[in-house]
Amino acid sequence: MSSHTHQFRVRYSETDQMQTFYNSRALEWFEVGRTELSRAMGVSYAEWEHRGIRLPLIEAHVYFTGRAKYDDLLEMTTSIHREGRARIRFENRIVQADGSGDVAHGSTVHAMLGTDGRPVRAPDWVVELLNKE
Amino acid sequence: MSSHTHQFRVRYSETDQMQTFYNSRALEWFEVGRTELSRAMGVSYAEWEHRGIRLPLIEAHVYFTGRAKYDDLLEMTTSIHREGRARIRFENRIVQADGSGDVAHGSTVHAMLGTDGRPVRAPDWVVELLNKE
Amino acid sequence: MSSHTHQFRVRYSETDQMQTFYNSRALEWFEVGRTELSRAMGVSYAEWEHRGIRLPLIEAHVYFTGRAKYDDLLEMTTSIHREGRARIRFENRIVQADGSGDVAHGSTVHAMLGTDGRPVRAPDWVVELLNKE
Amino acid sequence: MSSHTHQFRVRYSETDQMQTFYNSRALEWFEVGRTELSRAMGVSYAEWEHRGIRLPLIEAHVYFTGRAKYDDLLEMTTSIHREGRARIRFENRIVQADGSGDVAHGSTVHAMLGTDGRPVRAPDWVVELLNKE
Repeated sequence: MSSHTHQFRVRYSETDQMQTFYNSRALEWFEVGRTELSRAMGVSYAEWEHRGIRLPLIEAHVYFTGRAKYDDLLEMTTSIHREGRARIRFENRIVQADGSGDVAHGSTVHAMLGTDGRPVRAPDWVVELLNKE
Repeated sequence: MSSHTHQFRVRYSETDQMQTFYNSRALEWFEVGRTELSRAMGVSYAEWEHRGIRLPLIEAHVYFTGRAKYDDLLEMTTSIHREGRARIRFENRIVQADGSGDVAHGSTVHAMLGTDGRPVRAPDWVVELLNKE
Repeated sequence: MSSHTHQFRVRYSETDQMQTFYNSRALEWFEVGRTELSRAMGVSYAEWEHRGIRLPLIEAHVYFTGRAKYDDLLEMTTSIHREGRARIRFENRIVQADGSGDVAHGSTVHAMLGTDGRPVRAPDWVVELLNKE
Repeated sequence: MSSHTHQFRVRYSETDQMQTFYNSRALEWFEVGRTELSRAMGVSYAEWEHRGIRLPLIEAHVYFTGRAKYDDLLEMTTSIHREGRARIRFENRIVQADGSGDVAHGSTVHAMLGTDGRPVRAPDWVVELLNKE
């Protein structure tokens, strides 16, 4: 299993009138986590497409466990997992970077499609990525 | 169970480079569904707060089942359900208004908190709303 | 000059921690105004592209003149104007639908490009649209 | 005049169906620029409010001068300027970090209000910030 951690700040545009981040922002942050994990693994998200694999999102699950205010420094850990033969699951966990509490966690499930839009089994280079420590 | 259906169009700002709506928009649309259902039930979302009940979102689940392009006319049905004693669940289903296909469905789970931020049991007027046909 | 007015509500996702709409939402609303004006004029925005004209945005100007809270019903008027030979300008004005005050107004300037990405003069059907009462 | 430069990447959620960033994202990025400039100047945006100064946005202007794709590394320079006696103007310029081209530039004008919501003249610590090299 590969995983990656990076930090980011809550933008003003991501707050709502409850003074915390608006719920859908979690899914936007999860996407940033997938992007940064892919880069850290050596195969950028864009590169997946160049190699003929698309990963459309088919499920998303988010659990909201704490608050985060404008400009709070957050830390997100993202990991990638095999889900059956033609799917991939990313898991994300977001906490306050200063250790003061959990913010949100969840997962997204993606189909693995070839250039013809049909499900494909993971090619060798993907299997290798998924088996990396 | 109360439910409500309304129509809306995909905004240009909601598309992404895959030519379909970006995934997090589904959660923004679900929120519009809760707002419109509340209005249709006779108690606006803002009114819930005036009556001392807050409904923070604690879980969100989305299943992406089809595409929707810029300016597509979509139809969303939202229903409200009791979930245990101090929680409420909203379910949303979005389809192409012309009947050409499913787009997304899912649910959000909300705590029911009083003005002191503590879980409360549903007051009578909420029970009544939940039992409405 | 053609113009079009339509109503919409402020979404919860569009608020920020100041309890009013976040500033960038005005540009998203302006886009909805352009879409609805185009539809009202009989040539949908998507149809412009089918006819070989693209309208990339090159300038945007917004003046924030009042507040708007979650679920407020707003009314936006959008008009279209010629700007020199190969440009179009849309103007938008947003007010509270109940007449209680101004919210924002502004304009966007768009290049008029052909399928080859080069500036084009307005074809006859565009001139006709622009001259409509 | 104080200015600050920082780098960031285009998020997938910020793209639209034209494969470039959606126009309103520029205003969200400008806000990040104001936040980072404030931090670099030693007085966080939140701190302004604690010291009794609010800076509501009253005008925004954006010029779109180039494209930026998903995951492009961009560089934004933000500077702060006095605008008359009770206003502040921030200017932002965004370019491709690899020097390959301009992306967007613009400015936002902010009122300077006291805790009572009325315009105030810049207090000494603000004047000092504005005069910093």
